[in-house]
Amino acid sequence: MAAAGKPENLSLVVHGPGDLRLENYPIPEPGPNEVLLRMHSVGICGSDVHYWQHGRIGDFIVKKPMVLGHEASGRVVKVGSLVKHLKPGDRVAIEPGAPRETDEFCKIGRYNLSPTIFFCATPPDDGNLCRFYKHNAAFCYKLPDNVTFEEGALIEPLSVGIHACRRGGVALGNKVLVCGAGPIGLVTLLVAKAMGASQVVVTDLSAPRLSKAKEIGADLVLQISKESPQEIASKVEGLLGCKPEVTIECTGAEASIQAGIYATRSGGTLVLVGLGSEMTTVPLVHAATREVDIKGVFRYILLTIPFLSGYYKQKIFPLLISVNVMPLVTHRFPLEKALEAFETSKKGLGLKVMLKCDPNDQNP
Amino acid sequence: MAAAGKPENLSLVVHGPGDLRLENYPIPEPGPNEVLLRMHSVGICGSDVHYWQHGRIGDFIVKKPMVLGHEASGRVVKVGSLVKHLKPGDRVAIEPGAPRETDEFCKIGRYNLSPTIFFCATPPDDGNLCRFYKHNAAFCYKLPDNVTFEEGALIEPLSVGIHACRRGGVALGNKVLVCGAGPIGLVTLLVAKAMGASQVVVTDLSAPRLSKAKEIGADLVLQISKESPQEIASKVEGLLGCKPEVTIECTGAEASIQAGIYATRSGGTLVLVGLGSEMTTVPLVHAATREVDIKGVFRYILLTIPFLSGYYKQKIFPLLISVNVMPLVTHRFPLEKALEAFETSKKGLGLKVMLKCDPNDQNP
Amino acid sequence: MAAAGKPENLSLVVHGPGDLRLENYPIPEPGPNEVLLRMHSVGICGSDVHYWQHGRIGDFIVKKPMVLGHEASGRVVKVGSLVKHLKPGDRVAIEPGAPRETDEFCKIGRYNLSPTIFFCATPPDDGNLCRFYKHNAAFCYKLPDNVTFEEGALIEPLSVGIHACRRGGVALGNKVLVCGAGPIGLVTLLVAKAMGASQVVVTDLSAPRLSKAKEIGADLVLQISKESPQEIASKVEGLLGCKPEVTIECTGAEASIQAGIYATRSGGTLVLVGLGSEMTTVPLVHAATREVDIKGVFRYILLTIPFLSGYYKQKIFPLLISVNVMPLVTHRFPLEKALEAFETSKKGLGLKVMLKCDPNDQNP
Amino acid sequence: MAAAGKPENLSLVVHGPGDLRLENYPIPEPGPNEVLLRMHSVGICGSDVHYWQHGRIGDFIVKKPMVLGHEASGRVVKVGSLVKHLKPGDRVAIEPGAPRETDEFCKIGRYNLSPTIFFCATPPDDGNLCRFYKHNAAFCYKLPDNVTFEEGALIEPLSVGIHACRRGGVALGNKVLVCGAGPIGLVTLLVAKAMGASQVVVTDLSAPRLSKAKEIGADLVLQISKESPQEIASKVEGLLGCKPEVTIECTGAEASIQAGIYATRSGGTLVLVGLGSEMTTVPLVHAATREVDIKGVFRYILLTIPFLSGYYKQKIFPLLISVNVMPLVTHRFPLEKALEAFETSKKGLGLKVMLKCDPNDQNP
Repeated sequence: MAAAGKPENLSLVVHGPGDLRLENYPIPEPGPNEVLLRMHSVGICGSDVHYWQHGRIGDFIVKKPMVLGHEASGRVVKVGSLVKHLKPGDRVAIEPGAPRETDEFCKIGRYNLSPTIFFCATPPDDGNLCRFYKHNAAFCYKLPDNVTFEEGALIEPLSVGIHACRRGGVALGNKVLVCGAGPIGLVTLLVAKAMGASQVVVTDLSAPRLSKAKEIGADLVLQISKESPQEIASKVEGLLGCKPEVTIECTGAEASIQAGIYATRSGGTLVLVGLGSEMTTVPLVHAATREVDIKGVFRYILLTIPFLSGYYKQKIFPLLISVNVMPLVTHRFPLEKALEAFETSKKGLGLKVMLKCDPNDQNP
Repeated sequence: MAAAGKPENLSLVVHGPGDLRLENYPIPEPGPNEVLLRMHSVGICGSDVHYWQHGRIGDFIVKKPMVLGHEASGRVVKVGSLVKHLKPGDRVAIEPGAPRETDEFCKIGRYNLSPTIFFCATPPDDGNLCRFYKHNAAFCYKLPDNVTFEEGALIEPLSVGIHACRRGGVALGNKVLVCGAGPIGLVTLLVAKAMGASQVVVTDLSAPRLSKAKEIGADLVLQISKESPQEIASKVEGLLGCKPEVTIECTGAEASIQAGIYATRSGGTLVLVGLGSEMTTVPLVHAATREVDIKGVFRYILLTIPFLSGYYKQKIFPLLISVNVMPLVTHRFPLEKALEAFETSKKGLGLKVMLKCDPNDQNP
Repeated sequence: MAAAGKPENLSLVVHGPGDLRLENYPIPEPGPNEVLLRMHSVGICGSDVHYWQHGRIGDFIVKKPMVLGHEASGRVVKVGSLVKHLKPGDRVAIEPGAPRETDEFCKIGRYNLSPTIFFCATPPDDGNLCRFYKHNAAFCYKLPDNVTFEEGALIEPLSVGIHACRRGGVALGNKVLVCGAGPIGLVTLLVAKAMGASQVVVTDLSAPRLSKAKEIGADLVLQISKESPQEIASKVEGLLGCKPEVTIECTGAEASIQAGIYATRSGGTLVLVGLGSEMTTVPLVHAATREVDIKGVFRYILLTIPFLSGYYKQKIFPLLISVNVMPLVTHRFPLEKALEAFETSKKGLGLKVMLKCDPNDQNP
Repeated sequence: MAAAGKPENLSLVVHGPGDLRLENYPIPEPGPNEVLLRMHSVGICGSDVHYWQHGRIGDFIVKKPMVLGHEASGRVVKVGSLVKHLKPGDRVAIEPGAPRETDEFCKIGRYNLSPTIFFCATPPDDGNLCRFYKHNAAFCYKLPDNVTFEEGALIEPLSVGIHACRRGGVALGNKVLVCGAGPIGLVTLLVAKAMGASQVVVTDLSAPRLSKAKEIGADLVLQISKESPQEIASKVEGLLGCKPEVTIECTGAEASIQAGIYATRSGGTLVLVGLGSEMTTVPLVHAATREVDIKGVFRYILLTIPFLSGYYKQKIFPLLISVNVMPLVTHRFPLEKALEAFETSKKGLGLKVMLKCDPNDQNP
């Protein structure tokens, strides 16, 4: 719980499975290449809830107290001595991953693969669900005046879809199959359309989820029930009139990955976004002899920050908030009520819960 | 002039500078890989008018009578013995370039560079401003029911913009500079936006042309008067807040090419679409030391025919016809009045003149 | 058996499992884009023996008599009316796959994926183990004077390694892991070195095979016995001092594919050349979260025919023939003794058996 | 001149045109991500001589005293607190360019374009012609035991050729034209062959230079005298039997750049390495309509340091030292005699002069 007296830097800290506490941390001092931010809006992500409930995700284990939060935006209050592109007062979106060293992956422009990268709220690195947070200035992007803090915070989940579509090479006129109409599937759909895909078909088990997909731009949807992977592939081809050049698998289910291989056009690409069990059985020969490439994604690279432009503001963001999926900010809580916010999020209503970290500005 | 009696295959033929005639040609017989088409709609291109006026374009010289026309669509009336994907009655758009042999360029997927390619209305190859025309079936694309013949014919000019943006690598979130707001510049603008460019700035000498650019989607425009190339580059950077990753030069003017080099971001690409004089003086060192790549385009490759999809029908085509530029079909003439149509086009009102080749169907 | 009297075109024909016959076929007439070849040297491939023994490979089933042979070279004796780059007397290597139509795969430069491609000795297409054979002239490559017919015939197996290394993106300075030291593994090793790989490690169960790999250029070898896939990966990293950027799997064994995933560097590529059972269980999450791309190969594209150059003659071919593996032509039989040749090949001594189809020239 | 008494860190300093001095600098203290190196071998580059003679190169002007030297290797004597991959005693080659900030160019893997990059001996950044030098540890590469310090120092000039060939996309089997047989041209030739180019033709005005090119691997050479650019292109095509896919221009002469455009195959790439006058007149239309891309290079990116492998040691380095060109270290001077060394280098005998900075170890 927050300390009495001088609550310098109220922070939401997970100590282990089921053990979430609001605590008072010292306000950090930015290093020469860092900025100190007064946090404004931080969305609760499924991974935040997972760390709270289970104390781990795969090999990432909460071994010491860790501040949660990584979908975030805030305002610069102090800049390090070497920082030139930001100044106090600037409003920024935060890219939660920032390399710690210039290793081989950074040198080739794939810093998301750097094994020593700092990443908010991935053990042992603290996140930014707090009042004050310092971050590598090179990974803070100034928000245009017409983009709100919450819009800035939602850039992070959008980035997963962008990285997936880039890895898949989605191009003007492509047919694209998106497997799964959950938040990531829907974001991927938005990005595929923004990149010029001519037709996107979305599959899911749930009719309501598919309705949402239609609402935000899916050209075609396919509700899955008991079809075999081959049958799903065949139905997709029937809907599109041809096999899709790119398939983006967002469920992690083995049967869906198999369907993705069968469904993708020869010479095309299957992108694995959803993660399932460690070992997966797939028709690898079928993929190999048709030269269907299988590519995974690990987080993202915010190469050019496309979202901080008119396009994001005018086209993508309104879609993000137009439907009752992840992007819709349905609940807002002040940071002081973070535990209540996490309980709300855990109930899994499919809505985005936003924490407001600045006691003096609780606006979007 | 058209022969009396049995006007089998009325065709518009250029014989040399200023010598344009309607003549009766025999109806061709399709080869095993060809289809015979009843032509429906054929747009008049600037190059058609140029061949008529000057009898040549660069090294391409009209040495024997040549049928004009290459922006075209029609209906299949007969298929060659080996053709499987088309049948009589199908409505198709025509890709005017079809390789004659499987040379090295075809093998690597760049058949537009094949030196022996057949190309409609480029000497000595006949175009399709006629009643009946045969073409390589692999380069005829079936039109969906909801795409009209005229929409199909307009795919051809759109393809120049697609090829240019592909060569430039326009990607989601890019800033793009398009030099020139003529028909090709405007088409390029449309395509860049369709590929996800976040901001496109268009330059031109003419205010009315820039107004049209704004109308169809330009985020920013810059009217050029007496600025030096460096000054233009500087103004573009001022407008965008940064240098564009991609510049697509559509004027061919030396000063504009120079401005394009200065304006493009280090590591970016300048695409040359407009063609000027044979020798050009450019700040090559400035491009080289900033690794700004200079790439030309020669015609196009209709890789995936993105336009024959919902995207083209719902998004791009309405824009094409929404403004008084090339895409707007303002004049329609029956093929019999082709000479009158060419006179209209020559007057250069900036409108698209469409010739209707099927006497029984003059609809769009 | 060959007909008595006028043996116009003696051909080696498989009729079904175990049923191989020398028969007299008519001499074919080349079409306008074809050449007629007097066959000279044709290597026996494992797939030829497999069709003879089992009458099928996967879904490719010998339903009617089929001429075998696809590693071949010969001399032009007649050219079709449209052929310009070849003339009678030219000595050529034959690319056995030649597209039948200009489909979408041909247009993008990936014609090996064309579902209707003609491919020598793949049902139902006849191969070239015969006296006279006609082929698409665009897929016959003139041999330089200093390249023998047998060297020309061996280009075909080499091409598998080239395509695999290209798909893997092998580049100057790369570390490369090749799994399997059979003929394809060794060819891949040669190509990887030719592309500038700085260190190639080859794995196999067999010590003699690994000795051969060392002999022709492997920097490091690793004999596998009972290691787990993870242990193999760990040993490879130990040998190289780092993980390889590219792994080329040439065995098709599930454990080896798994090892390939564990072994490859984050951001690298695993190329699947060897084919195993239809369904394969792999650590897909491990590949995906480290962005190790998994790419198969299907035959090859002879883009630039690098082998028909000094490089092939001076560098690669001597290596091909310097060791007792596939490339060494240890047996030569006249076409008349093809059945004996196939029996020799079936015994699997690991040597290349070459059939000499020209009774007047049995030289290499 | 070096101070008497305690010569802590003898350094070679240029103060302005013609003003070169040996001075005693303090020994620097490495920052947390830096290493302190005892310099061993530093080659004299043409640019070092140029700064000494003219006090500037283009816009880079010596405004305050600057230590020269950037082709360098040394031994680690102290490591910063965050450095993990190096330890005192390690022998390293130095990549002279090290980004100062993680800007957009670093994020996409093109850090050589970062406008704020630190680069040895480019004003205002000090080089490493001194006893002790600190450098970003991430840009120091440990030398294998069998690579000498001088071999390590020569990696730097080799890198220009590597970057040029990468930008040109030189691939297995390519025909390559290298214009200019000076040091950079020769290095480029070596790299092109190492990447698998099947035939490289080198052009130059000087017969002796071309002899050297032949000696180290040029397949063909062409001595230029009074030919027009088109004639040169024609002769190159005659020699190779076809146009080269890649041309790498290393002279900067306008006529040679023009020849490069005419000579390159349609769809190929012309790489500009040599730099000439600010404005260049070129047949841009000829390049554009044949889609010959024009790409410059700016320094290099040492992506994977291919040279620090067996390949460099066994294949490339012996060639580098086998001929009387730049790579041959014909003169060695102790650092104390640096002025004499520079005079030797200025005389331009085409030999590499190496300064030995460690008084206790003057070995190669």
